[in-house]
Amino acid sequence: MTAAFETALSNFASALEAGLAVRLEPVPRPGEIARPARLLAAMRHAVLAGGKRLRPFLLTEVARLLDPRQTIDTLMPAAAAIECLHCYSLVHDDLPAMDDDTLRRGRPTVHVAYDEATAILAGDGLLTLAFDLLADPACHTDPTIRAALVLDLARAGGLGGMVGGQMLDLAAEGRFGDEAAPDEAGIRKLQAMKTGALIRAATVMGARLGGATEDEVRRFAHFGEILGLAFQLADDLLDVTATESEMGKAVAKDAAHGKGTLVARLGIDAVRAELDRLVAEATDLLAPWGTRSETLAAAARFVAERRR
Amino acid sequence: MTAAFETALSNFASALEAGLAVRLEPVPRPGEIARPARLLAAMRHAVLAGGKRLRPFLLTEVARLLDPRQTIDTLMPAAAAIECLHCYSLVHDDLPAMDDDTLRRGRPTVHVAYDEATAILAGDGLLTLAFDLLADPACHTDPTIRAALVLDLARAGGLGGMVGGQMLDLAAEGRFGDEAAPDEAGIRKLQAMKTGALIRAATVMGARLGGATEDEVRRFAHFGEILGLAFQLADDLLDVTATESEMGKAVAKDAAHGKGTLVARLGIDAVRAELDRLVAEATDLLAPWGTRSETLAAAARFVAERRR
Repeated sequence: MTAAFETALSNFASALEAGLAVRLEPVPRPGEIARPARLLAAMRHAVLAGGKRLRPFLLTEVARLLDPRQTIDTLMPAAAAIECLHCYSLVHDDLPAMDDDTLRRGRPTVHVAYDEATAILAGDGLLTLAFDLLADPACHTDPTIRAALVLDLARAGGLGGMVGGQMLDLAAEGRFGDEAAPDEAGIRKLQAMKTGALIRAATVMGARLGGATEDEVRRFAHFGEILGLAFQLADDLLDVTATESEMGKAVAKDAAHGKGTLVARLGIDAVRAELDRLVAEATDLLAPWGTRSETLAAAARFVAERRR
Repeated sequence: MTAAFETALSNFASALEAGLAVRLEPVPRPGEIARPARLLAAMRHAVLAGGKRLRPFLLTEVARLLDPRQTIDTLMPAAAAIECLHCYSLVHDDLPAMDDDTLRRGRPTVHVAYDEATAILAGDGLLTLAFDLLADPACHTDPTIRAALVLDLARAGGLGGMVGGQMLDLAAEGRFGDEAAPDEAGIRKLQAMKTGALIRAATVMGARLGGATEDEVRRFAHFGEILGLAFQLADDLLDVTATESEMGKAVAKDAAHGKGTLVARLGIDAVRAELDRLVAEATDLLAPWGTRSETLAAAARFVAERRR
């Protein structure tokens, strides 16, 4: 099962990489004037670098569960959009003024491969492209869906979600000197914003693209919240247990920055027990779809048990 | 006339400032988790700092010309959105890795008042908020319009527009060492992307909000292109003729950076003559609306003749 799931995820990642590449070709689209070569190269460096592609995979799988007529191709614009948003956040988080990382997925980060200004602009370009892809009629024939997807992604990615979470994360390092270290509730809020919101957006957007009822949208919002929490707990575990070569990026950075993680507060065993509960809860939410939801259940296990 | 226009622009700027402020209150909106105080303060610093508010003014005036039932209130979400996008671009352009400006509208830039990381995130938050505001049903009842506005702004603001223009602008300073100084055509392309695209988006979005026909959308796209070009020519003139205290920011930076501007290439007199031609052309495009278009004609003159 896990091997089959990893194959499915890997096949999806190849298809998504191709879909991202065609959206980052040099030819400008209607309404664009030109695509400067250096900027485009930096954006391609940021998004065409492998990666698990977990968020677009979740979006695609939820949509296909609800509407089996959907395919990777019909869902590609939205899948590419959420990955562009995720990759922009990595480019900006890696900047010297932020987390100052030089390595990402085993390769130099964008500001190392290019320069800081180009990295800032590449991130801005990817963030903007994400909304471009969602608003374009190629994403979905129904403009109500397209506008809802834009709003989902903006609320999840903005000051009340991912961007705000990164702000809280920097504050938790004590760099502004005026904030107490967050307690457990504070850490959970920070993580829900920084990581959870976008994973929740992936499953919500997938539900909308699958023609979900309002009830189903709520169910997959909950499913995404659980996966987001599991993802972050697993990440915190990996930060203390994995090696740099397994992760393709620097590890043990949280401890080095004095960040309070839930692993540090609750201990490895309690976090592993919470992860088991989260996987069970996520799987329960998929019960209405029986064996058809096996891939999404496997995704929940993968998120909780991943080694990279 | 000019005094009346300046009063109208100033009254609009006050209304817009209030509209922006209510969209940057601490209370999170549906789908948001929390709005971190430091991030919110930096975003407010960036957008609640006065400024001409030219882009949202143009958006509002075009919409009201085409549909007199529209008001500042009904148009506020879209007006606030384009101003958020403009202000994010200023925050990021001012960063040390970019243009390294410490003064903007007579006040410290965001990275000086706060810090670089906060400024990067404040820009990201404003860019994301722009699309949030356009996609929200409060912007317009018709989702087709909302999705079209998102696409207009994304294409104008992204790698093929404003972000790409800033990339070309940095390259024109020679900082990447591999680019020839742009010729006149190159400078015009750079300026059309960096400045023109967003002004064009303002008039196109206004046209859509006013219920424009496709023909009217094209007309106001052209109108916006002319104003964008005039804006940049006037800016280049001001860079050589204005004082820092008039502008509230550093001047003569283009020459200091060795940037080729059209003023340097064509001379002050030729640029002033071109500005006169552009104002005449813009005014001609408004002929179908007769005296009702006086404010927009005055806006064209203001853009070309402005002293700040």
